[in-house]
Order: sequence, then C-alpha cells, then structure tokens
Amino acid sequence: MPNPSLLILPGDGIGPEVMAEVRRIIDWFGANRDLAFDVSEGLVGGASYDAHGTPLTDETMAEAQEADAVLLGAVGGPQYDDLDFPVKPERGLLRLRKEMDLYANLRPAQCFDALADFSSLKRDVVAGLDLMIVRELTSGIYFGEPRGIMDDNEGGRVGINTQRYTTEEIRRVARSAFELARRRGNKVCSMEKANVMESGILWREEVQWVHDNEYPDVDLSHMYADAGAMQIVRWPKQFDVIVTDNLFGDLLSDAAAMLTGSLGMLPSASLGAPMANGRPKALYEPVHGSAPDIAGQGKANPIACILSFAMALRYSFDKGDEADRLEKAVEQVLADGVRTGDLIGEDGTKPVSTSGMGDAILAAL
Amino acid sequence: MPNPSLLILPGDGIGPEVMAEVRRIIDWFGANRDLAFDVSEGLVGGASYDAHGTPLTDETMAEAQEADAVLLGAVGGPQYDDLDFPVKPERGLLRLRKEMDLYANLRPAQCFDALADFSSLKRDVVAGLDLMIVRELTSGIYFGEPRGIMDDNEGGRVGINTQRYTTEEIRRVARSAFELARRRGNKVCSMEKANVMESGILWREEVQWVHDNEYPDVDLSHMYADAGAMQIVRWPKQFDVIVTDNLFGDLLSDAAAMLTGSLGMLPSASLGAPMANGRPKALYEPVHGSAPDIAGQGKANPIACILSFAMALRYSFDKGDEADRLEKAVEQVLADGVRTGDLIGEDGTKPVSTSGMGDAILAAL
Ligand SMILES: CC(C)[C@H](C(=O)O)[C@@H](O)C(=O)O
Ligand SMILES: CC(C)[C@H](C(=O)O)[C@@H](O)C(=O)O
Repeated sequence: MPNPSLLILPGDGIGPEVMAEVRRIIDWFGANRDLAFDVSEGLVGGASYDAHGTPLTDETMAEAQEADAVLLGAVGGPQYDDLDFPVKPERGLLRLRKEMDLYANLRPAQCFDALADFSSLKRDVVAGLDLMIVRELTSGIYFGEPRGIMDDNEGGRVGINTQRYTTEEIRRVARSAFELARRRGNKVCSMEKANVMESGILWREEVQWVHDNEYPDVDLSHMYADAGAMQIVRWPKQFDVIVTDNLFGDLLSDAAAMLTGSLGMLPSASLGAPMANGRPKALYEPVHGSAPDIAGQGKANPIACILSFAMALRYSFDKGDEADRLEKAVEQVLADGVRTGDLIGEDGTKPVSTSGMGDAILAAL
Repeated sequence: MPNPSLLILPGDGIGPEVMAEVRRIIDWFGANRDLAFDVSEGLVGGASYDAHGTPLTDETMAEAQEADAVLLGAVGGPQYDDLDFPVKPERGLLRLRKEMDLYANLRPAQCFDALADFSSLKRDVVAGLDLMIVRELTSGIYFGEPRGIMDDNEGGRVGINTQRYTTEEIRRVARSAFELARRRGNKVCSMEKANVMESGILWREEVQWVHDNEYPDVDLSHMYADAGAMQIVRWPKQFDVIVTDNLFGDLLSDAAAMLTGSLGMLPSASLGAPMANGRPKALYEPVHGSAPDIAGQGKANPIACILSFAMALRYSFDKGDEADRLEKAVEQVLADGVRTGDLIGEDGTKPVSTSGMGDAILAAL
C-alpha cells in the first residue's frame, strides 16, 4: 500500500511558521511510529494570489481533491483587504470547502487545565470544558444565490445575500452531530432562529426528523441562536455537541473558542463524504487566523495547527491512539509550564518561540 | 399641552408582572415630579393571539403609531411554539418594529458594580463595563424577500431567507451610532462579514462613507462579526459603541448582555424617525424574554423594564435628569443589597418579590 497523502497549504501570516512545526511532528510519526505520509505542499490565500493572481489555482484544487487529507495554516492579511471579492484570500479557503463538499466542520472548544486561568471567564465556568460545535460549512448564506451589490434604482445601492438550506443539507450535518454525540456525552443541542427565519424552521424540523427516525437514543434539544450565544457565555458546560448553520456556527464557535482562553490551542476538522478508499474528504486547520501582526517573528503558537494534525490522525487515518499520544504530549508540555507569548499573563514567565514549542512537544513525544 | 401618551403592551410570561411595577413608577413621576402621562394598555404576542387570533391587531398597531412612546414587556411562551409562523407571538413585536420603522435598536450592556461578581466573567473584565450596541432593527434577513419553505423538486424541501440592505438603511443607523458615540466615548466599531458577504461589503463601505462625510471626528474601526464575538468575550471594555446589522446584533447584544451578569437589569430602546412633535417613534423593552418558567410567581426582576422607562424619559421626553434620578434609585437599591431571585448566588441572601423590588425602588425615589 502506498503511504497516505497529505497536502499542506501553509497560507498567509503565521501559517508558514506554525506549519513548519507540524512538518517536524509528521516526520516524527514517520520515523518512530511507522506512520509515513507522502507530503506535498501548495499555496492558498494571499500567498497564492501573489504568485498566481488567484487565491487557489485549479491545479491545487485538483490536488486537494486527490489528497487523503489537507492541512491548512491560515489565510488573509491587511495587504489583501482592498482586493476584489472574487480574489480575496478567503475565497481560496471557501472554494476548498465548497468543492470538496466539506459539510461538517468540527470545532472542539476545550479548556486545557493548565490554561484555565488564562480565560476571561471564571475558572469554575471553564475548567474541564469539552464542547464540540458542529457547524454546517458548505451552504447557507455563505454560498446562497442571488448575491451581490446592485443599484437600487433610487441613486443608492443594495447588498444581497441568500440563506438557503435543503432537507438533505440539514440532515447530513445533523447525522454528523448525532454520530459524534454517541461517542461523547450523547447530547445534541441544535441552534437556529426558527422564531424569525423560515430556514430556521426547516432546520429545526429536519434535525428533529433525523433524531426521531435515526438517533432516538440521543438527547436532542433546540435553542434560538441568540439564547445560545448567551448560554455559551453563561454556563458552557451545559452543552455536549452543538449543531448549527454556517453563519451562526462562525460566530458561536469563535465565542466558544475564546472563552477557553486557549485560542492558539484550538484545532478544527472539516469533513465531507467518504472517498473510494473509505476515508472522508477532509481539511484540517487551526481556529485562529493569520495574525499578521506577529507573523514572521517566531512568536506564534503552533499548538492549534499541531492538534489539527492530531484530528487528522483520528478522523482521516483511524489512528485514535496516535492522536491521543500527540494530544498527551501537548498537555504534558503545558503542564510543564512551556508557553508561547500568547499564553503568558502578568507573571513574568519567559516565552518560548514557535520552534521552541515544537522542540518541547517533540521531546515529550 | 396635553400629557404625553404612553402605550403599554405587557405581553406574555413575566411581562404583565414586571410592567405592573413600571406603572407604579410612572405614577410616582406623575405625582411627585410633575410628569404625568396618558397611559393606555393593549395586547401583544400570545396574549393578543389568545384574545383575537393575531399577535397584534390593527387597532393596537394604529395606537402604537400615535403614541409618544410604547413600552413593551415580553412576548412568547411554549404554548405558542406550534403556531403557524405568521401568528407566532414574535410576529407582533416584529410588526411593531417594522411598521413604526424603528431602525435603531439601542442595547446598552452595563455592568452594575454591585453585581459584577454575578457575571461568569472575571470581575476586572466586566466591572465598570458600559458598552452600547446599536443594532439595525427593520431590515436585513429578518424582513428580506424572498423567504419561505418550498419543495426542492427532489422530494425534499428548501428553506430560504434573504439578507438585503440598502445604502440608506445602512447610513441612517450608522448616523444613530455616531451621534451616540459623540455623547459617550467617541468611538464606533462596525461589525459585519465583509470577507464572506457582499451585503457586508456594502455595510462597511456605507458606514465608512457616513464617517468620512459627516462624522470625521469620531474614531471608527471595522471588525468581522466572528472576531467581534471573540473580542466581546475577551475584553469588552475595548468597545464604546458597536454598530451592526439586525441578525449579528441579535446574537452579539445577547452575548454582551449576558457577560454583565445582569440580564434581568438591561433595558433597550428602539428608535425611528422624528414624528411631527419632534419626538422619535419609539418602543422600549427589556432585553430579557418572557421567562415562562417563572411567570406568575412574583419572582421576576422588574428592573430591566423599569430602566426601559428610564430610557423613555431620556430619549423620548428629553428628561435626562429624571432618567438619572430613576437609574440612581436602582443603583441605590442594589447597593443596599436588595435582590430578586435571579441576582442571588450561593450566599443565602433572601430574595424579594417582583413587587418587593418595586417597593424598594419607590422608597429610594
Ligand atoms: C476566514 C473566513 C472566511 C472563515 C469563515 O468565515 O468561515 C473563518 O472565520 C472561519 O471560521 O473559518
Ligand atoms: C423575540 C425575537 C423576535 C427578538 C429578535 O430576534 O429580534 C429578540 O430575540 C430580541 O432580540 O428582541
């Protein structure tokens, strides 16, 4: 059997430097755990725009379709802010999600014990938090037509976007959420604005349908997304798995990520349908952005990106034990007090560099 | 001159009981501060549906259009969950907002010093917080057409809603935000998803236009709404005034409200264009919902509704000094340790009833 293939797209800002540490981790698994990958690298976002005038070339898109898993760093930066909409760095990422049909975005919000005091929330509210947000990623207002900016025929303009969800789009992501819940706390909370939006009514009904017909054993509740935003801030431990649409998921998962105090720590997985080899189409990326303010200075925290590779081991390559090994190494390093600059409060600890953190994790492995 | 008119719509759940305390406060101002109002009462939401089969009658709608200000309690309850979309309790509230054209929803997130420990956030993150969210309230995905649930011609259904903003809709709410900022910290942060949505690009451009042409003295910044959700949780004191669209405003203002730990304390004002008498069309309501679980038990906290009347004194009747008087009385009562059940932690304080809180505030006045 050939080695499984990994396509690495470091992207912009701190993407390349955090990805460099991930490559060292990948090499370690190849050398020590008999887990070799065929790794190739490509461009996405502003980096691709600079080289090719487009945030994702057709060639790289085709490579991503063939890869067993894609690892992405981050996209975007102020130098690209004035680019036209179709060539913005984000369009490269959105094209990958859409064309690979990665409909289920898994965003764990986990609070690392060693970092609980770093949260803006009180320790007892977040310590031990382990919440999974499943965000629909290929439909909704991100992709619905019609869209655009037009003249409003009264001397002004009108901006339009369309939220659009079908039965099947809702059911398949609901299934992902119920499957995950069964392997966790067996509880799903679905969030929408069914009191205001018809697409929210359909969302609620279809999630309920999947529950009643396929997962009656899982505990299902529904919440309006504004109440959800409140409850995530008030007492996040009430949740196990949250399933929600693309736009609500964007805001709610970022709020949830921030309350762990560990933004530089959080990975994500975006999964699609199984390929011929049984593996799901998959893209893994850290939750944090490209952090242009600290890019190129060796200050970035590579853990979110490293844990994204751990998710790849678990969800793409069925190596849950190796994923555990990597996650434990990260926990070990944190417990030992190793910190990049983003994880340091007022206590005067000396930060390690991006590669210093990589060294520590390799040593712990 | 006739007395100014107030239309009171208590609505559902705890609405009637908190509004009963507001009426006592209104009477106090009539008797002691030479500020008499012509008060009338009507039905909205489930209460109106029960009596008339509609969440708002045309007669009540017409009265609201004529009133100098409308005070609303809350709408909704589980017994109405299965009603058809057009007669849901929320539709009554949404019709008021839309037909009165109340485009600027002012939602202060203030942390009361006496309650700072009640927040799920650390004291230093929220103590002294005074943030104003200005939410667009009459357009966007709440009202855009086309909308509905249709057959998708493949045996399933499709749910559709439309986000739609015009130049003028964006500019007028931006002006409200800049005006408020000038009387506060002189800073506005505008939030959208211009990296993903064209309506967000238009939003950003038009807010910038209003700034450059009419309010160049105010400090303006832009933030993506997901980053905004993060920053509101991380360090809310970085903001003075936030301006955002209807749907983002719904989630972000609820998250901001919750982090004060004082949800039962927070009022809101929804303002439209000036009427012939110079007063803006206006509706005032607490941020909290109808809380059906505690309705009718005398447990509800009436402060949010009472402070909504204080906002009416300030924004509709130009009585900032009387609003201050009422707000100070509330602060006094809290400093004295008077607490409804929602404001009590583990310390064994005995809660006062809804009317007990009203008594205390009247005594402080
Ligand atoms: C970069 C951007 C297009 C993206 C999104 O809005 O989905 C990001 O915020 C995310 O959550 O992955
Ligand atoms: C009750 C509901 C229709 C309403 C909304 O979504 O606007 C509420 O959440 C609010 O924020 O006032």
